[in-house]
Amino acid sequence: MLHIIVSAAVGIIGLIGVSFLVRGILKADPGNELMQKLSKSIQAGARTFLLTEYKVVAIVVILVAIFLSLAPFFGQGVQVNWQTALAFVVGVCGSALAGWIAMSIATRTNGRTTQAARSGLGRALNLSFSAGAVTGLSIVCVAFLGLVIISLVFKGKSVIVNGYAMGASLMALFARAGGGIYTKGADMGADLVGKVEEGIPEDDPRNAGVIADNVGDNVGDVAGLGADLLESYVESIIATLAIAASMVLISSSYRPLSYLPFYLASWGIISSLIGIAWIKGVRIKDPQSRLNSGTYLGAILMIAGSFFIIRYLGIAYENYSVLGPFWAIIAGVISGLVIGEVSVYYTSSKYKPVKDLANSCQSGPAVMVVSGLALGMHSTLIPVVVVAAATLIGFLVAGMYGVAIAALGMLSILGITLAVDSYGPVADNAGGIAEMAHLPPEVRQVTDKLDAVGNTTAAIGKGFAIGSAAFAALGLMTAYRATINSLSSHPFSLSLADPKLIAGLLVGGMVPYLYGSMLARGVGRVASGVVEEVRRQFKEIPGLMEGKGRADPSQCVNIAAQGALKNMMLPGILAIIFPIGIGFFLGPVALGGFLVGSLVTGLQLGIQTANSGAAMDNAKKYIEEGNLGGKGSYAHKASVIGDTVGDPLKDTVGPSINILIKLMAVISLVLAPVFVIFH
Amino acid sequence: MLHIIVSAAVGIIGLIGVSFLVRGILKADPGNELMQKLSKSIQAGARTFLLTEYKVVAIVVILVAIFLSLAPFFGQGVQVNWQTALAFVVGVCGSALAGWIAMSIATRTNGRTTQAARSGLGRALNLSFSAGAVTGLSIVCVAFLGLVIISLVFKGKSVIVNGYAMGASLMALFARAGGGIYTKGADMGADLVGKVEEGIPEDDPRNAGVIADNVGDNVGDVAGLGADLLESYVESIIATLAIAASMVLISSSYRPLSYLPFYLASWGIISSLIGIAWIKGVRIKDPQSRLNSGTYLGAILMIAGSFFIIRYLGIAYENYSVLGPFWAIIAGVISGLVIGEVSVYYTSSKYKPVKDLANSCQSGPAVMVVSGLALGMHSTLIPVVVVAAATLIGFLVAGMYGVAIAALGMLSILGITLAVDSYGPVADNAGGIAEMAHLPPEVRQVTDKLDAVGNTTAAIGKGFAIGSAAFAALGLMTAYRATINSLSSHPFSLSLADPKLIAGLLVGGMVPYLYGSMLARGVGRVASGVVEEVRRQFKEIPGLMEGKGRADPSQCVNIAAQGALKNMMLPGILAIIFPIGIGFFLGPVALGGFLVGSLVTGLQLGIQTANSGAAMDNAKKYIEEGNLGGKGSYAHKASVIGDTVGDPLKDTVGPSINILIKLMAVISLVLAPVFVIFH
Repeated sequence: MLHIIVSAAVGIIGLIGVSFLVRGILKADPGNELMQKLSKSIQAGARTFLLTEYKVVAIVVILVAIFLSLAPFFGQGVQVNWQTALAFVVGVCGSALAGWIAMSIATRTNGRTTQAARSGLGRALNLSFSAGAVTGLSIVCVAFLGLVIISLVFKGKSVIVNGYAMGASLMALFARAGGGIYTKGADMGADLVGKVEEGIPEDDPRNAGVIADNVGDNVGDVAGLGADLLESYVESIIATLAIAASMVLISSSYRPLSYLPFYLASWGIISSLIGIAWIKGVRIKDPQSRLNSGTYLGAILMIAGSFFIIRYLGIAYENYSVLGPFWAIIAGVISGLVIGEVSVYYTSSKYKPVKDLANSCQSGPAVMVVSGLALGMHSTLIPVVVVAAATLIGFLVAGMYGVAIAALGMLSILGITLAVDSYGPVADNAGGIAEMAHLPPEVRQVTDKLDAVGNTTAAIGKGFAIGSAAFAALGLMTAYRATINSLSSHPFSLSLADPKLIAGLLVGGMVPYLYGSMLARGVGRVASGVVEEVRRQFKEIPGLMEGKGRADPSQCVNIAAQGALKNMMLPGILAIIFPIGIGFFLGPVALGGFLVGSLVTGLQLGIQTANSGAAMDNAKKYIEEGNLGGKGSYAHKASVIGDTVGDPLKDTVGPSINILIKLMAVISLVLAPVFVIFH
Repeated sequence: MLHIIVSAAVGIIGLIGVSFLVRGILKADPGNELMQKLSKSIQAGARTFLLTEYKVVAIVVILVAIFLSLAPFFGQGVQVNWQTALAFVVGVCGSALAGWIAMSIATRTNGRTTQAARSGLGRALNLSFSAGAVTGLSIVCVAFLGLVIISLVFKGKSVIVNGYAMGASLMALFARAGGGIYTKGADMGADLVGKVEEGIPEDDPRNAGVIADNVGDNVGDVAGLGADLLESYVESIIATLAIAASMVLISSSYRPLSYLPFYLASWGIISSLIGIAWIKGVRIKDPQSRLNSGTYLGAILMIAGSFFIIRYLGIAYENYSVLGPFWAIIAGVISGLVIGEVSVYYTSSKYKPVKDLANSCQSGPAVMVVSGLALGMHSTLIPVVVVAAATLIGFLVAGMYGVAIAALGMLSILGITLAVDSYGPVADNAGGIAEMAHLPPEVRQVTDKLDAVGNTTAAIGKGFAIGSAAFAALGLMTAYRATINSLSSHPFSLSLADPKLIAGLLVGGMVPYLYGSMLARGVGRVASGVVEEVRRQFKEIPGLMEGKGRADPSQCVNIAAQGALKNMMLPGILAIIFPIGIGFFLGPVALGGFLVGSLVTGLQLGIQTANSGAAMDNAKKYIEEGNLGGKGSYAHKASVIGDTVGDPLKDTVGPSINILIKLMAVISLVLAPVFVIFH
């Protein structure tokens, strides 16, 4: 029970930290009337979207909950029932709540950050980072507290607790896919009419699509990213718990293995809080160094603390040393940092890859796009090797349990890493508001500086999201294997000699491609809808172009929201149906192969699309800074096309694939008892 | 011995057929002096390239042969030695010889086809198809005869015969990668200066890069495709043989299992000959129907004949029915045809996908490229499911042996399928010669009609190449598994519970991406080289633009050739070193995972790139036919950019990945005895 009490206390401490941060933000000056109005429209748009999204998701959630509740009718001995369904619903609500808090604060901080930027970089950074910290902490604490409650109520029974993770995962899928289609559909739609057809600048209030574009940053990069990492976080814990549960069946002396995740996660929250306090308090001028120092502090604290926790629990199992899990945690933390740094190398204009890419723009858009795609493909090398190595190390030092605990190590300090990652969209919005409110150029310079740092942290965040997704999925697969073997009288071998496994691998490898293609098409459809509406307003609203009439951004917001939700349904449902279908018809072995197959291609595709897109974006910015002829040059035109190709890749396809592989793995884990009965 | 005698006789009959076809071609009128000259320059360029390529490959071949010869020093009991090395060298030479024959005849037929087109479609089709048939038959017969000789000399010992396949594979890798970089580097380079900078039409003789572009069609689509399918063909046979060999160890009554591949391949050659004769003799007006009727005739003959062969041999093993392998063959043949048809659906402008893609061009190049990439991703669904289903069926009806025999079934009628696929480049070249020789437009109309059919058959060919590569690789992996387990005292379980296997899977999944990115960059580098040379000639040769001076195409041919060979080296060597490194350092289990991982992503990437590229190409052609505003419209400009993005994807990256996965699998199979000793 001690682990539950400690966890609950830490979760509450974290939320108290959130309330302090929120108070600090709300005290700040919200700026002049126009700025407040702009901030409010963004807020209203984001709220509209999330509410609509939650309504749509509710239908799917109810259907899935009914399905889970009916599971006992599939056969005798199936342990999945209404309790799993309940945990599932709690998981959905937890993720939705955390996303709502993050979005509400982010959209309230954007205008205040603009105002703070009038009195200098330091204050603006402080404020926007506070919003990031609220996102990071509230997501981690809400998710963790929910898990603690479910564990307490249902006495830690894996088959029920897993349902909680499945809920978080399903919500994440729709948040990421819907948010991704929304943000890029609105972005492309607004640009295609505004910049290309009418020749007015970006973020111009005459363009009815501009607010939708700014809303997109919040629903995609704040709520979407948050839900994604919340899912990874929850799953890394429950995967460890599920493996521990299967080991407890062997010997009850292994029980402390299922306490360890709670202690580690609790300490991770404390480490994050200290790191956040450090960033807010320290006097380092350079924003990037300031943020980095906090992250590294958190990582060091985490590693040091976990040493003592693991020694104190002192669990020796099989042939592994007591400190085995500690080494696994180090492997996890370090590989998370390495993957982030590799993303920066491939996507920052400071380094060779993006510079070369910018050079290739001189040979025209086609060469640029091919080079950008090739860059992303090349960037998969190190992250994949790092994930493979960490998996090997985790197993070597602590067995199956070690693989899961490496994932947990990577994600334990999510509070601080997510805080750093998600301050970017706030800074981005702040810049947009500065532009729309016609503030002096110095303000924009400050927000631009913050935004540039935000781009780098966003790249790290994306790398981290993919790496952690791979680890979480590996942990879930390990848990899946342990579960099917603990449930069945005949062990499943999951050997490559089994053609069902091979068939599963091949089909699983195809799903990320199919899913990605559906999302990419969705973005295209939403963009056309926004284009038509913006065009209509320019035509029908008298005096709009001359600045006399007023554009109605709410129409575009609605179109983007409806379109995003419509286009996320089919891929979302496929992600649920595929693993269930494979599990029922081809059995648990094929499903095991299917999950691994989806991980193998999903990891590649996720890294490639994220890095290709970010690199093309930054190559464009590099040219816009005045290199290679600057704005308006032939190279610049090519880079704009490349950037537009990269946008849906990096912000819609790539991030959603992380969730796809996790969701399919967690569904398989939850329904494993059903599939085992059938085969 | 009977199977060897029959095989040798059939191989020789096939070559006699080739000589008849060649005589028919050489008798045809080669056209006027200018046409002969143009045809000769293409021939000379192709010859230069192949000779340079063979020289470069020779160095790698010698190094690998030395490595294989030294294998006994790695440890006691390693069965790989100079005999495997010798078989390897024979495999390389066989592939090189077949490629040389195919290229020589194709480049001699192009001008003659132009001339024949002056007197009608029927004669032109007959002639260009003859060249295709020479390619198909000579590749199949040379490969098969080489295998028969190696089997005879070394008494069918798997460890030696496998070396022959490895030779064919290594040659194919360089032929495909080098040919692919060559053809697209020259194509892009010539277009970027000619069409974009100087505004002169395609295939204009003033452009020094035009001949290199035409040469590229021959070294890429004739020699490259031929070497690729030759490899699949050989590997599908030797995989079956290797599995049979491992079963003979269990019971010598299974020996006829190792005769069956020879009889089936022999009957496949006879079926192909009959199909070819049918196409040349039948009176069907529509070229597409005429070609299809021959292919289907060959497939039906193959299936019928294999029924009698399998019944006659009457091998019952384990629990499988005597007719088990027959059902596996049907699964293989049918899935080959289905994959081809799916490629046509996704890439022909007759169907919805390409029409939608053409429509998306109206929203600009970025939307077009994203839609094109999404189309390719979507097109992986059916082929992957078909491959998975055929694998399951093959196993269900005839065990491991059935998986390999399904691959053999698919490839047995390669003689006719390759004949149909490879007549396209001849027709394409014929059109180019008609243009350059200023022949009347009716001639160009005939060759354009042939070329259009050729595009469809090329799409089928690419789908078939990928599908067959997947099957061949699956067969090789099955053989690899059987081999490591027959060599070792402790069976390797190749289970997903083994983290080494997972690590291998992840790293294996990354290699096709890394490899593809290297090739794509190679194309870019060669294109810049060609651009510079064409620019230089326009500047330095007096009166070139006005038609008074003469361009020197041989310089461009050399630059493209040298660049292609230089840029194929590193990826080629990586493809050899990766499996060897994994096998040595992480062992046979990790290597098993590695191979499957490379297959999973390679299959996706191969299908996606091939279909994305072909669809973007055909969307452009669809617009050029006058749809959506026709040539010069905004949509057309967007489609040209999309087409240029798609070119290196479909003709360089995609096809080379087929070979990558096969080469890595065959290297692993050959060196399995070495890795087993170490682990």
